[in-house]
Amino acid sequence: MALIVQKFGGTSVANTDRIKEVAQLVIKEKKKGNDVVVVVSAMSGVTAQLIDYIGNVSTLMSEEALAEYDSVISSGEQVTSGLLALQLQTLGYKSRSFLGWQAEIRTDNTHSKSRIERINSDIFMECLKGGSIPVVAGFQGISDDNRISTMGRGGSDTSAVAIAAALKADRCDIYTDVSGIFTTDPRICSTARKLRKVGYQEILEMASLGAKVLQIRSVEMAYKHGVEVQVLSSFSDEPGSLLVNDEEIMERRVITAVAHSKDEARITILNVENKPGVVAGLLQPLADSTINLDMIIQNISYDGKRANVTFTLKEPDVDRAMALLKDHTNKHDIKYEDISATTEVVKVSVIGMGMQEHSGVAQKMFQTLADNNINILAITTSEIKISVLIEQEYLELAVRLLHDAYELGKDPRA
Amino acid sequence: MALIVQKFGGTSVANTDRIKEVAQLVIKEKKKGNDVVVVVSAMSGVTAQLIDYIGNVSTLMSEEALAEYDSVISSGEQVTSGLLALQLQTLGYKSRSFLGWQAEIRTDNTHSKSRIERINSDIFMECLKGGSIPVVAGFQGISDDNRISTMGRGGSDTSAVAIAAALKADRCDIYTDVSGIFTTDPRICSTARKLRKVGYQEILEMASLGAKVLQIRSVEMAYKHGVEVQVLSSFSDEPGSLLVNDEEIMERRVITAVAHSKDEARITILNVENKPGVVAGLLQPLADSTINLDMIIQNISYDGKRANVTFTLKEPDVDRAMALLKDHTNKHDIKYEDISATTEVVKVSVIGMGMQEHSGVAQKMFQTLADNNINILAITTSEIKISVLIEQEYLELAVRLLHDAYELGKDPRA
Repeated sequence: MALIVQKFGGTSVANTDRIKEVAQLVIKEKKKGNDVVVVVSAMSGVTAQLIDYIGNVSTLMSEEALAEYDSVISSGEQVTSGLLALQLQTLGYKSRSFLGWQAEIRTDNTHSKSRIERINSDIFMECLKGGSIPVVAGFQGISDDNRISTMGRGGSDTSAVAIAAALKADRCDIYTDVSGIFTTDPRICSTARKLRKVGYQEILEMASLGAKVLQIRSVEMAYKHGVEVQVLSSFSDEPGSLLVNDEEIMERRVITAVAHSKDEARITILNVENKPGVVAGLLQPLADSTINLDMIIQNISYDGKRANVTFTLKEPDVDRAMALLKDHTNKHDIKYEDISATTEVVKVSVIGMGMQEHSGVAQKMFQTLADNNINILAITTSEIKISVLIEQEYLELAVRLLHDAYELGKDPRA
Repeated sequence: MALIVQKFGGTSVANTDRIKEVAQLVIKEKKKGNDVVVVVSAMSGVTAQLIDYIGNVSTLMSEEALAEYDSVISSGEQVTSGLLALQLQTLGYKSRSFLGWQAEIRTDNTHSKSRIERINSDIFMECLKGGSIPVVAGFQGISDDNRISTMGRGGSDTSAVAIAAALKADRCDIYTDVSGIFTTDPRICSTARKLRKVGYQEILEMASLGAKVLQIRSVEMAYKHGVEVQVLSSFSDEPGSLLVNDEEIMERRVITAVAHSKDEARITILNVENKPGVVAGLLQPLADSTINLDMIIQNISYDGKRANVTFTLKEPDVDRAMALLKDHTNKHDIKYEDISATTEVVKVSVIGMGMQEHSGVAQKMFQTLADNNINILAITTSEIKISVLIEQEYLELAVRLLHDAYELGKDPRA
């Protein structure tokens, strides 16, 4: 008998008909003789509606305001958990819902993006021992100050993995509206293939392919605690994708996936004076405002006196960053010729544990793009990822070319 | 400086615009130098939507199911309390929301219609001492088993009065969509007049006039703890109606109001054998099923061998009552000529503390109806109420005639 944590996202519990189908998936697992702990998100659209209400009455970001924000938006998961428990009861199964505070899912006090600190696994174990199916409201916990806390967008994934870790569950099944993790976005590339297994490190690097499916923090937590996570669809019977230790798969393939990110922006400052510390000083106000920069390029003029500084950041941050930069250069009398921003850029990445053991991976990427006249505007790399910034209009072409170049459409087991 | 509890019902907080107006009513009280504790209902329509969801997944009435029911429907008040606290913060006031479990509003374990057992007033006092406005989610508490409990339809009124009692508040203002308690239904009788003061006992007897405005249990609680309750509209500045000790008003008038109830039904059993205990036995299964009977009339034949039994009950219970009666008479071989039910009957009542001191009150009622050819089908009386059952078609006429006969349109202070 195994212990399985099942997590159902918003589209999986979109309405009461869908909740009935989810109950069948729970019962199916139960009938295999397994113990099941269920974690649910809000019915799709509910959280957005609540955020809309909040926006009508407040734009405050104080801790007091965020505590109220959490109290309001956590109500969505509360509804789903009660409804699913009721449906399971109706079908003759013992079941009860647990809210974050009832399950004693203790978090820190950073409301709206709190982190789980500990979970009282005894509460679930007692429930399971009584033959009952616990249905946990995801996304929420209780902070030290006895208030509801929530864990940010996709937080139910983290709830599920944290509970699986606390209970030493055999598997954590994340049911969603896609059937797994793909070699690239199937809407862009028709030969995209579902990955049966993905390494934790790999998925962390797959911003666009992974983050839409799983909250990054949940993957980090799964990795840390060795939780076996399966991503699968609640709308089909297909097997999903399994998150496993990277060692398990790295020999098989060099590149695992081609990812992309559209919400990128680039800011360029032309002909800024190149004195020691100027560039670092230029970027300091952005760091202070928790604006994350991704790629940073500095070209120094032949005489060494002037520099062009280019960096990329997330699109939603661009207006704030421009304002901060202009304010900062004014205040410190830093001279430059021009400052400009564009959001007409995208990032395309190839990811794979195998690139650590193989040479020529980057070269193939650059050559493929060059052969097709796609200009690389900037490059950034990690141990297992190479990302390039390109113009937005080439996004789909680049993804398809790279997917082909690394032969990702072919099953490596075939 | 006074301590005022303000309670806002569903239509008062129907949407975020209304919540902003409610915030102004809170601030207005605060600006008078008073301490304010706010209690809110769910935004109108929300509870009905949640009950609809529940109906889609379950019709169970077990304690386990009712605990889930409570967890689901209590989410509506959770949303409103957070939104109002946010709006007050936005306007520069310190405020925080309290859910039932956070405010330690302890109830018994009878989910869906639980009763408040105790309230930790220290929590509110501490909040007030810190200059903050507590906004309490009404309708909900926490049961011994650490689960959310709710207090039945209109339960937020009871939350408000209970908190007012626990805090020894100077007044409990119940804001609603009507501006007070009227001498009769203004939609039926154009001369209906708002009562500036109503006795606790009187309002308890005014099923139709009172129950739509205030949960009966909240009136009982206000009476018991001597809480001064004011019913007023959040949509206008008019003064409302004040609930006071009955002694305060009983000398002023004989009759206070004319009430009516439409959801009445009558069941008649013809020519049942009149043996000792037969009639009591006939009604026993109804009592066992917690169907409340109101008026009961038994006519015995001249020879004493047969009886006609007529009784009234609430319309929603009538099908269940008929089934129980047929089953019971079959099982015990009780003979009767016919059994029939009708819902084409209504109850009209005159209520007033003063009738205890005055004679001829009932006579005036019966005479008024007789003079206008309205047949009285049954009569029931209490210390301060006389009710008659009449045919449905005469409802409005009867209400108007009685309102005139007792001169309720005239202000007794005039």
